[in-house]
Amino acid sequence: MKRKKELNQEGKLKIIALGGLEQIGMNITVFEYEDSIIVVDCGLSFPADDMLGVDLVIPDVTYLLENIEKVKGFVITHGHEDHIGALPYILKQVNVPVYATRLTMGIIENKLREHNLIGTTKRKVVKFGQSINLGNFRVEYIKTNHSIVDAAALAIYSPAGIVVHTGDFKVDYTPVFGDTIDLPRLAELGKKGVLALMCDSTNAERPGFTQSEKTLSRVFDMIFSGHKDTRIIIATFASNVDRVQQIINSAYRYGRKVVVEGRSMVNIIETASALGCLNIPEHTLINIEQLKDYPEEKTVIITTGSQGESMAALSRMAANIHRKISIGPKDTIIFSSNPIPGNEKAVTKVINELSRKGAEVIFHDAHVSGHACQEEIKLIYSLVRPKYAIPVHGEYKHLKAQAKLVEELGIDKEHIYIISPGDVLELNQEEARVCGKVPVGDILVDGLGVGDVGNIVLRDRQHLAEDGIMIVVLALDGTDGYLVSGPDIVSRGFVYVRESDELMEEARELMTEVIEGCLDKKVTDWGKIKMSIKDNLGNFVWKKTKRRPMILPIILEV
Amino acid sequence: MKRKKELNQEGKLKIIALGGLEQIGMNITVFEYEDSIIVVDCGLSFPADDMLGVDLVIPDVTYLLENIEKVKGFVITHGHEDHIGALPYILKQVNVPVYATRLTMGIIENKLREHNLIGTTKRKVVKFGQSINLGNFRVEYIKTNHSIVDAAALAIYSPAGIVVHTGDFKVDYTPVFGDTIDLPRLAELGKKGVLALMCDSTNAERPGFTQSEKTLSRVFDMIFSGHKDTRIIIATFASNVDRVQQIINSAYRYGRKVVVEGRSMVNIIETASALGCLNIPEHTLINIEQLKDYPEEKTVIITTGSQGESMAALSRMAANIHRKISIGPKDTIIFSSNPIPGNEKAVTKVINELSRKGAEVIFHDAHVSGHACQEEIKLIYSLVRPKYAIPVHGEYKHLKAQAKLVEELGIDKEHIYIISPGDVLELNQEEARVCGKVPVGDILVDGLGVGDVGNIVLRDRQHLAEDGIMIVVLALDGTDGYLVSGPDIVSRGFVYVRESDELMEEARELMTEVIEGCLDKKVTDWGKIKMSIKDNLGNFVWKKTKRRPMILPIILEV
Repeated sequence: MKRKKELNQEGKLKIIALGGLEQIGMNITVFEYEDSIIVVDCGLSFPADDMLGVDLVIPDVTYLLENIEKVKGFVITHGHEDHIGALPYILKQVNVPVYATRLTMGIIENKLREHNLIGTTKRKVVKFGQSINLGNFRVEYIKTNHSIVDAAALAIYSPAGIVVHTGDFKVDYTPVFGDTIDLPRLAELGKKGVLALMCDSTNAERPGFTQSEKTLSRVFDMIFSGHKDTRIIIATFASNVDRVQQIINSAYRYGRKVVVEGRSMVNIIETASALGCLNIPEHTLINIEQLKDYPEEKTVIITTGSQGESMAALSRMAANIHRKISIGPKDTIIFSSNPIPGNEKAVTKVINELSRKGAEVIFHDAHVSGHACQEEIKLIYSLVRPKYAIPVHGEYKHLKAQAKLVEELGIDKEHIYIISPGDVLELNQEEARVCGKVPVGDILVDGLGVGDVGNIVLRDRQHLAEDGIMIVVLALDGTDGYLVSGPDIVSRGFVYVRESDELMEEARELMTEVIEGCLDKKVTDWGKIKMSIKDNLGNFVWKKTKRRPMILPIILEV
Repeated sequence: MKRKKELNQEGKLKIIALGGLEQIGMNITVFEYEDSIIVVDCGLSFPADDMLGVDLVIPDVTYLLENIEKVKGFVITHGHEDHIGALPYILKQVNVPVYATRLTMGIIENKLREHNLIGTTKRKVVKFGQSINLGNFRVEYIKTNHSIVDAAALAIYSPAGIVVHTGDFKVDYTPVFGDTIDLPRLAELGKKGVLALMCDSTNAERPGFTQSEKTLSRVFDMIFSGHKDTRIIIATFASNVDRVQQIINSAYRYGRKVVVEGRSMVNIIETASALGCLNIPEHTLINIEQLKDYPEEKTVIITTGSQGESMAALSRMAANIHRKISIGPKDTIIFSSNPIPGNEKAVTKVINELSRKGAEVIFHDAHVSGHACQEEIKLIYSLVRPKYAIPVHGEYKHLKAQAKLVEELGIDKEHIYIISPGDVLELNQEEARVCGKVPVGDILVDGLGVGDVGNIVLRDRQHLAEDGIMIVVLALDGTDGYLVSGPDIVSRGFVYVRESDELMEEARELMTEVIEGCLDKKVTDWGKIKMSIKDNLGNFVWKKTKRRPMILPIILEV
């Protein structure tokens, strides 16, 4: 028995999520077997509400840096920001080859160009069905369906067994571009024997089956046929090339010209067209400058801004600050999207603004999800029949919902692993267990700074945001420690000073008293004087206003 | 003709919403006829996301203050914050009598006590069917249904005609407490002839009929019967007394003791019980201290926190900082509520935290709305048959949705008025038109300060929140203008200073250079020196970090 255990110990696969669990976003998962590491995806997440001023969040990859000689490459499932967005930042530290399908690589390359990394990053485009060898691993790319073209599941072969990672997926029997998810291959793997399945949990709470992207074709046709007298503006996710394709198809059928507006939308459409993932009939696409040459009811504008993002094209139109397009009663505007949780109010604001300009706004039924619902998840489990289930891509409640589904399918409860970021899950055919923890965390990107905004800076920003700042400045004589100048009090974000003369004057008098008091008592430790300023001013202001601005004493030595 | 017009001019009713339109919240509407003004409701709204640090928002009542001698009273429809929350603030300036139904007045009185206004505010409890005379107006209270007991519609009689204001309402044929909305009285008024209907638009986008509150009785029974082995915790809106009643009923049926937790919940339940609006079987309610005396599966906790509010009882339980209650696998937690737009992420966070502790969380199907859907709105219009329709209580999109419904009912499009806050709508039997604008706006309440946080303070808070602050302090000789001390640079919320030594040192050197440069050039205008500091440091920091912290130069004269 003892000997067997030792053998297992050696022959174990480690799976470590550095992100993507207990949140939707920042997907990055480490697979390690002996001296080989591969990394599936390298995504970013968007800042939480309390991460004031932060632009984006990338994963802490300390574990990769500590094992840099083992790392064989990044294996990317698809081109969404939460799967590729951190690459340009992480590649600067972990410069290993990147593997991805065609469109995914096209999108990654756009990023690498922006970050001046295109010359230094090894890249390899992988085809569906193809395998790549990376140290102890072999990784096979398997076709799936998702809200972006060229999404892949991965079969990861290790000496300890095969792990299937679905990436983000849905089952679309009538995809707009390319084939249906390769269910036969997943079944084949299931027959061969799969050690573990890591399956998308995003929609694990939703019963039923996610609708085919193709169902929207009829929806768009109906909208086009019902609005023959107005211009049509459709906002959707830039990366949803299939959606754009269907809008273009409807536009073509109804004899309208199409304008694409919004930088990210233009970029992706160029990339997708160049790679043949988008099929635009001749003379359909026109330039925004040419809009004026056509009657309004003969045009369609496909635009960014479906999430109410304040700088996106549609939001600028709504706010009357778009340079080329202004909204009026002869506009029908369609949100071909659902608000991502947290964006509801921003989207509503844009809808109200558009509506107030007289436009008709349609925001129901013109969207389908890109993620598998419960019946699809069950289908995948039934084909792959893994020994262990490791729900991924979701908040805790999503992971738990998948775990519950899987249990219903008859998989042993003990074989379902809801793991946390950083957990080291060791597994082979004999057993699986969490046997350690590696460092994980959020690295905040603010402007050019990566990681220089941490908890202390954020706490200060929150404090400043809440009640502003009061600065008490004074000059002390360096040798004899008497008050040479001040105290002056300057505030920002606290009260409107011109209307609070009295309060500010009282505060100044109090401060003079407090400082003179300290100096009379021969306090020479400036730290103590500062503390006394903070305490006294803080109490005074709280009593007067029930607010707690940050109080910052600055003493100049003269 | 001319003479007729003059007569009309005199005999006109003015309706002015000081809030409640183009937003959900801060409902307050002025009715003016010659020398009489009455005010319907006096609500607050909660701060928008960009109102950093603000506690609540109340309406600008300049118009009332300018016409104070005309104002006869506040006529309140029901006890929700968006209809009564601003009263304690506004009464300090506009001290006129307050009229309301029994429970509504009970809730108002709790507020007045907190603000020490109970002795100075004239109050009168009005019964349904009763009318009150206020100058040129008579106001009749009409029973409605809503998510709070004792909600009223108002028939406002003026010499120009009758206006019916629905307040917030739904049509509940099987109310938990009290009667169904007084449809016969509304029909009677319709027969008499109604000048205008001001109808709740909240759910005007939703087809169908809002479900009866009573339908939840079965839902709670099902949950109780399906969870006989766990403690049950139910979060809902404190003011929904009927909901609490139904939970207590189910608890009683299933032999469980009930604990009420959360300050606002306790307050309202005490008030409602004292007024006989809540019927609690003997020995059912227990104190939180007594919880330990009963097996978990024999208890129910009704709690605040259904919106994920960070300081509410349920959120404290979820975060493990509640003093008396800790969550575990033997808990079933029900959200008997829908997240109000903007609270989705906070609610999800609490659900994830509870779920991670092993509790089962139920957040579907245990809530019904308190607002009328399309069929109910149509019903009210069909009974009241007003000449003019003035949709109220909603964002622009909701008002427009009601306008569309009303048009379908055959009301002349020209007789439908979507007005904006401050619009003076003059109307009588001959005509209606917007003929002026009065001042309106948001007065921000922050701590004890009412109105001392305005645009400048908010802009500063946003700036500070985004990128923090850099303060440049120096002491100049008052007569000869040479640099006596400094420049020192202190930052907060910008970068973690200990790890940015080099940047801060470079900045200090640059500042020394800039200031010496100014002094060498004999610049004596400190404003110019400050400007030069701001420009140079701003550019330097932008180049180095792509951030724009607030830059605050402070010069001490020595």
